[in-house]
Amino acid sequence: MSGLKRTTEKNLMVFSGGAHPELADEVAELLETELVPTEARTFANGELYVRYAESVRGCDAFVIQSHTTPINEWIMEHLIMVDALKRASAKRITVVMPFWGYSRQDKKHRGREPISARLMADLFKTAGADRIITVDLHADQLQGFFDGPVDHLMALPLLATHIREKYGDQSLAVVSPDAGRIKVAEKWANALGGVPLAFIHKTRRNDVANEVVANRVVGDVTGRICVLTDDMIDTGGTIVKAAEALVADGAAGVVIAATHAILSEPAVDRLKNSSATEIVITNTLPVPAEKQFDKLTTLSIAPLVARAIREVFEDGSVTSMFDGQA
Amino acid sequence: MSGLKRTTEKNLMVFSGGAHPELADEVAELLETELVPTEARTFANGELYVRYAESVRGCDAFVIQSHTTPINEWIMEHLIMVDALKRASAKRITVVMPFWGYSRQDKKHRGREPISARLMADLFKTAGADRIITVDLHADQLQGFFDGPVDHLMALPLLATHIREKYGDQSLAVVSPDAGRIKVAEKWANALGGVPLAFIHKTRRNDVANEVVANRVVGDVTGRICVLTDDMIDTGGTIVKAAEALVADGAAGVVIAATHAILSEPAVDRLKNSSATEIVITNTLPVPAEKQFDKLTTLSIAPLVARAIREVFEDGSVTSMFDGQA
Amino acid sequence: MSGLKRTTEKNLMVFSGGAHPELADEVAELLETELVPTEARTFANGELYVRYAESVRGCDAFVIQSHTTPINEWIMEHLIMVDALKRASAKRITVVMPFWGYSRQDKKHRGREPISARLMADLFKTAGADRIITVDLHADQLQGFFDGPVDHLMALPLLATHIREKYGDQSLAVVSPDAGRIKVAEKWANALGGVPLAFIHKTRRNDVANEVVANRVVGDVTGRICVLTDDMIDTGGTIVKAAEALVADGAAGVVIAATHAILSEPAVDRLKNSSATEIVITNTLPVPAEKQFDKLTTLSIAPLVARAIREVFEDGSVTSMFDGQA
Amino acid sequence: MSGLKRTTEKNLMVFSGGAHPELADEVAELLETELVPTEARTFANGELYVRYAESVRGCDAFVIQSHTTPINEWIMEHLIMVDALKRASAKRITVVMPFWGYSRQDKKHRGREPISARLMADLFKTAGADRIITVDLHADQLQGFFDGPVDHLMALPLLATHIREKYGDQSLAVVSPDAGRIKVAEKWANALGGVPLAFIHKTRRNDVANEVVANRVVGDVTGRICVLTDDMIDTGGTIVKAAEALVADGAAGVVIAATHAILSEPAVDRLKNSSATEIVITNTLPVPAEKQFDKLTTLSIAPLVARAIREVFEDGSVTSMFDGQA
Amino acid sequence: MSGLKRTTEKNLMVFSGGAHPELADEVAELLETELVPTEARTFANGELYVRYAESVRGCDAFVIQSHTTPINEWIMEHLIMVDALKRASAKRITVVMPFWGYSRQDKKHRGREPISARLMADLFKTAGADRIITVDLHADQLQGFFDGPVDHLMALPLLATHIREKYGDQSLAVVSPDAGRIKVAEKWANALGGVPLAFIHKTRRNDVANEVVANRVVGDVTGRICVLTDDMIDTGGTIVKAAEALVADGAAGVVIAATHAILSEPAVDRLKNSSATEIVITNTLPVPAEKQFDKLTTLSIAPLVARAIREVFEDGSVTSMFDGQA
Amino acid sequence: MSGLKRTTEKNLMVFSGGAHPELADEVAELLETELVPTEARTFANGELYVRYAESVRGCDAFVIQSHTTPINEWIMEHLIMVDALKRASAKRITVVMPFWGYSRQDKKHRGREPISARLMADLFKTAGADRIITVDLHADQLQGFFDGPVDHLMALPLLATHIREKYGDQSLAVVSPDAGRIKVAEKWANALGGVPLAFIHKTRRNDVANEVVANRVVGDVTGRICVLTDDMIDTGGTIVKAAEALVADGAAGVVIAATHAILSEPAVDRLKNSSATEIVITNTLPVPAEKQFDKLTTLSIAPLVARAIREVFEDGSVTSMFDGQA
Repeated sequence: MSGLKRTTEKNLMVFSGGAHPELADEVAELLETELVPTEARTFANGELYVRYAESVRGCDAFVIQSHTTPINEWIMEHLIMVDALKRASAKRITVVMPFWGYSRQDKKHRGREPISARLMADLFKTAGADRIITVDLHADQLQGFFDGPVDHLMALPLLATHIREKYGDQSLAVVSPDAGRIKVAEKWANALGGVPLAFIHKTRRNDVANEVVANRVVGDVTGRICVLTDDMIDTGGTIVKAAEALVADGAAGVVIAATHAILSEPAVDRLKNSSATEIVITNTLPVPAEKQFDKLTTLSIAPLVARAIREVFEDGSVTSMFDGQA
Repeated sequence: MSGLKRTTEKNLMVFSGGAHPELADEVAELLETELVPTEARTFANGELYVRYAESVRGCDAFVIQSHTTPINEWIMEHLIMVDALKRASAKRITVVMPFWGYSRQDKKHRGREPISARLMADLFKTAGADRIITVDLHADQLQGFFDGPVDHLMALPLLATHIREKYGDQSLAVVSPDAGRIKVAEKWANALGGVPLAFIHKTRRNDVANEVVANRVVGDVTGRICVLTDDMIDTGGTIVKAAEALVADGAAGVVIAATHAILSEPAVDRLKNSSATEIVITNTLPVPAEKQFDKLTTLSIAPLVARAIREVFEDGSVTSMFDGQA
Repeated sequence: MSGLKRTTEKNLMVFSGGAHPELADEVAELLETELVPTEARTFANGELYVRYAESVRGCDAFVIQSHTTPINEWIMEHLIMVDALKRASAKRITVVMPFWGYSRQDKKHRGREPISARLMADLFKTAGADRIITVDLHADQLQGFFDGPVDHLMALPLLATHIREKYGDQSLAVVSPDAGRIKVAEKWANALGGVPLAFIHKTRRNDVANEVVANRVVGDVTGRICVLTDDMIDTGGTIVKAAEALVADGAAGVVIAATHAILSEPAVDRLKNSSATEIVITNTLPVPAEKQFDKLTTLSIAPLVARAIREVFEDGSVTSMFDGQA
Repeated sequence: MSGLKRTTEKNLMVFSGGAHPELADEVAELLETELVPTEARTFANGELYVRYAESVRGCDAFVIQSHTTPINEWIMEHLIMVDALKRASAKRITVVMPFWGYSRQDKKHRGREPISARLMADLFKTAGADRIITVDLHADQLQGFFDGPVDHLMALPLLATHIREKYGDQSLAVVSPDAGRIKVAEKWANALGGVPLAFIHKTRRNDVANEVVANRVVGDVTGRICVLTDDMIDTGGTIVKAAEALVADGAAGVVIAATHAILSEPAVDRLKNSSATEIVITNTLPVPAEKQFDKLTTLSIAPLVARAIREVFEDGSVTSMFDGQA
Repeated sequence: MSGLKRTTEKNLMVFSGGAHPELADEVAELLETELVPTEARTFANGELYVRYAESVRGCDAFVIQSHTTPINEWIMEHLIMVDALKRASAKRITVVMPFWGYSRQDKKHRGREPISARLMADLFKTAGADRIITVDLHADQLQGFFDGPVDHLMALPLLATHIREKYGDQSLAVVSPDAGRIKVAEKWANALGGVPLAFIHKTRRNDVANEVVANRVVGDVTGRICVLTDDMIDTGGTIVKAAEALVADGAAGVVIAATHAILSEPAVDRLKNSSATEIVITNTLPVPAEKQFDKLTTLSIAPLVARAIREVFEDGSVTSMFDGQA
Repeated sequence: MSGLKRTTEKNLMVFSGGAHPELADEVAELLETELVPTEARTFANGELYVRYAESVRGCDAFVIQSHTTPINEWIMEHLIMVDALKRASAKRITVVMPFWGYSRQDKKHRGREPISARLMADLFKTAGADRIITVDLHADQLQGFFDGPVDHLMALPLLATHIREKYGDQSLAVVSPDAGRIKVAEKWANALGGVPLAFIHKTRRNDVANEVVANRVVGDVTGRICVLTDDMIDTGGTIVKAAEALVADGAAGVVIAATHAILSEPAVDRLKNSSATEIVITNTLPVPAEKQFDKLTTLSIAPLVARAIREVFEDGSVTSMFDGQA
């Protein structure tokens, strides 16, 4: 019979865009490999260029990029990296975006708006992505925006473990800063062993449309350390006001926990000056030195991402990392 | 110069599947046309067959089907109708599904689940659908599941007008039966002129995971007629319990308002025997005679659908029907 | 050099929908594995839900479902199962449909009909199917409806072996119940060692369009055991009339052989009361207890399907099972 | 409001490849237009080139090409013409292929064969075709090979009218040269007013596999003018032997009627020397002067094609041309 | 017959991204319409948002954006604008990018590079673009990167007219700054009435790979005004050195003409201080006030773009604007 | 756990179309395998047929075909071979086309032309091609025409080694026959160790548009052996005139080197009678016996193709064969 047989090998290779190389480095190290050396340049007119210094033919590629500011630059670099991998014959391309850029534009609030979160999914598909690994989506429905597997990781166990270890011997409450995100707070309350749940209810003035007049705390937080949870902190306005309301309502203290530390201006100042005693975040997005401050605790998401990559590479189970939840 | 010129005409044609012909008839009448005569048969082994009795070449087709029980039959008929239109040279095919079947399976709650709401979008795209018209999606993100325009209609103005006209002179409150749907209730509160907002908070026992022990009313409903709002009533369990909690909390009365009346067993009995004095729904899904009862008020969604079809056909604006919201 | 190498393993996993689990069980057993445990539920409004209880990441999935009554339910479950596999990172998905639902709607007989057999191929492709395994297509051209490999299995060797073993010492003839299917009967005649071929010719009245007045036997069947062959038995009308015509024409006996036992009402009564002494079928479709009767012999298609799955999994040859025919 | 409005005009333009310009000319004339002037060249190495001499922007293009010998040249020219139209902004492109090249390779007879008829459908789709107009497909299922509308024209009324007018006062029979094509003969029998039907049954030797030993006439043809019908005449072997068998069986005469006159060597000699007194064909394929002979009657398919184009252009009904059949 | 007929109108609407609104305004004015009012915002983390203030349903949309610095921002905005149009039911979407971003990355020079010019074409296709209008591609082959019509405009007539009018009475020569672009210079030489052609030949040292030692002028330029032509001026290095070589070789003067004025640092200084007496460019890219200087003449590309849009809208001919060239 | 595990093997199989079996044979031999036995036939009407005599299920297929005269036949056979592989479950299909047919039609020179080079890429993609291996593209941009990996091989090292070995001790110059292809000549000059570069400049008459009046040699070739290089020789007109100009200009001799020997009429006569002393080509296209002549040296491209196939199969690096260039 004709033909030439070989045993098939698969080869995991990890790539990093320029947005957050420290995270990618840590992931690679945890996987006991190294980032593939990559030449990245910006031309005089701002056009980006990448090239891999090693053959990537047949590899199982994982391309890590944080969609941080300047976000369109980094997304474009991410897309170009995928294109280069596709044309260089990578066997499978997994886009690792710990924070899914444009995830908040996930529906049309008004006519003639884009649905940019879906557009991002389509752009990566077109560039050549076979799958996506991401962390804590703003809405779980975004899993359905990509035409292929989406591995959705959760930072909750990581953050909750920190809280438990540090504050576990005190009286806790979990608080959602917004009525629309109570379901996430419920998961937190369970993860902390069934502590009480509260949330901030924004009341509005009847005579002026949509004007918020007060942040009312619903649930009893008196004398408790309140764990204020959210998926992301952007400018920090909502969450800092929530912390103030909690303190006013008799909370013994406030700890803020969130996955994505966007920290756009003036988030750092707001948080520094807030009544929260600790802000716990992960490094899905880079937190540059000038944004760090005493009360900020950054937990690394790298072990989670590394384990997910390993499970994907070795055909294990990603949801087993989260007791079956996706 | 070569060629043969003609002025282009467009031709609106309305088609109906077998699930809810009364709705489609009403829509056609409002559009001052008639449903395209369609032969529909079921073969001995359950395979469905459709054929249009008139030429549909070049038409702007609107295919109406309610995704009601037996839901898979009607979805399959809907798909087959679209295929027949595509192959018969319809120019543009708009799928009108007042209730989007499988819309609740819009994300993976646990690993290895389907995202059937996205699958439905893809199946209709494959069959030949160019756009979708639908009413009150379970999650707005479903707009992003379809690769094309989705016209998202809202029944709220219709339902709220009925409430306002009937109860407007009384003291009202809007109540969400579930913390996760407060944002919809907020729109209701605004639509009713800024009446107070309340909701039912399910508290759970700390010692038994996820067991709901009580439905606590958050917000003051004493002496008020409570308008309990939801997007759909399936078996009616949650909403009926919410009604009881409201009455127990001193409400002067309860009116339930929901868009999609799925009314699976034992919804009708539950609603009949509930403390609600009126249940207001629309006919996005058919309500057969045996499911109707005194307290049930059915408002027709047909004028809304008909107007949307006309706007689509005449390149008007659908969102103008809702003050720009989508 | 960067990267992490592993030898690649492939993992065959067999899944079953709810239509015919006995067949799938038998296939799995022959493959010396087990069906992947699957949670399947029907919601109150008829929406279907499936979830796999084990990780399926990277597997070579074979999803077996019989497209039997209620056929649209089972096809939809089949599609949803494929979607769940795709999103759970199965490496390759083979849809095993022993009977291809809607296979008879394979062309437009009249204008404005669907071509539902092609639609089914496209729906499965969209859901995520990479290939199809099926048995005895109504028209061989359906292979070309799917954009990918179709492994087309033939039950003829299985059925013919049964006939040969039981009736091989008698004088046989092969008879086609319809002029349009003589080519299949020719294969049968060859498979039985070159026995004579006959068929039933429907003559029509000249004065009344399309009215069949007689089933005339073409070919000499006198004194022979006639093997009446067809691809499927639906309501059984045609084949039972053919059996009568054969007996009237002097046949020594009639044995009916068909692959797909749809057996829609009133097939069972017709067959029971027919002049055929044995009806030999396969279990591509389930034959529930209430449809079984003395003269009915059911041969299992499972060994054929199991062998095809093994050949596909191990990169063997499926057509080698049929002397190169496809 | 922004924007610039115009009434939309549509512009029918007819294009012809080099295979059969006479047919295209006739079609254009019947449509009261002219073929779009087209520059077509063959480069030294055989590569083809086309360019349209007039703007085709926004036109409703109909591209006519006969898939005749050298068939791969003409198909490639056809594809290139479609590509040029797509890139030149034609609004809609209809491929008119009176004979669908490779239509006989419509399934896999044995493993590892192509399904070239489907491949052709996909190639035209890829090049930019929106729809296909074709005549008398070898198998009706080919309609389902194209992902879009296929307008399937039938030459039977044209051919049958000729037969009726010339032989209508004689005693006729319709004969199928092959058991596999009896259904077409049935349509003929109906079209000729219900004349008797017969066919040629090939009997095979039991001792030598597949060797045909005799062409047996089934049905009574004695004293009748036999109309032998087929969809195409390629080398003419089968049909000429059928004619001989009919004469041997007492037929008063034989007239052959077929849509596609491929007439590969040695068809012309065979037909000339056959016992048939007339061979009636259409010009879906060109019949060059050297292939014409006394007994050959060529009816023009141009009126049928022209009317179909007009119906497509004006959103009329193509199936109305055939009493609803497709 | 069923249905509701209307005469079809088409509606041209022009949209502008934020990169170069002056150009879009001028185009709209030339078309005697206005830009569609568009809300554009940048969120705190850099995500972009657009929304159209008017209904765009059914319109023939032309979306103008200059791919200038910050180029990835503007491309992303361009993509998002197309997505919003697609989802808002625009009938046809034409992307107008006077300069095609990333057009120089049109091939792999070395292994594992992206082909970003093709990626851009695919991204716009995915977002919803039906066609592209662009000016003076770096390589004509980029027309083939987009799967659809590309209208390729040429600035040469515009630039050449300026040169002819201003310098036509002097002795001219056309000079290419690079051997690889002589074909463009040939077109220039023809456009200027057959003036002599010269170019700069870079000679390299044999002993040091790729080191350019001299810019040698090929062709006689003594005493002539040299028109140095290129498609773009980025940092200006090559073209300014070419100007110096020409002066050294006896040229009477140098005028630089280029379509795309990227003018990255330090292009402005180089050009200011160069021996060229005039630099003629177009405004395909915006030239902000701080980049303008005395010797710089900017011709507006708007009339060309406006006429192309009109031809596209009215099904005229774009190539007729360039004597048939594309 | 469910499932059946196997170590994955990959199986390289090499296939050859009928255009140039000698090349494919040589490639297979170098890979230490054999061509897969393939049945290829041409039907009476010119339709092509192929079938593989062995199972190809799961193989890594490389399908070699030279796009030589009759080029449309061979391209169609190539497409049909890919279709048969796809439907027979080949795992990956690499199209090996040493010469990319229609590569010169890579852009629209004038309006309403096709871009046939892109069309070819799309046709092969549609048929089922996953990647392309090709040699010396007419324009490097063609890499971007295919939506997938293109391995672009270069014959320059092969040809240059021959030249160096045979003429290395003489005084050489590299000459481009056309100003548009100087960049290739530069690579040659480097490959030959930095020899001088010259080219032929076509000067045109000012008074007659585009009429070439002279081939002027630019660069000093006196006393040198000139290596005239091009990517292909079609009819040979340009290159033979260039050779004459070189001799007239004092060259000591002329050697022509080109990759693709199309050699259309009257190339052989022109080359035979030219002043070139040797013409060195490769066998990317077959050179039949009647086209061979004394001065013609054919180097085999097979080792290059074989090595590329091996690198692709074994996940090595193709660009490593060319020092990283692509």
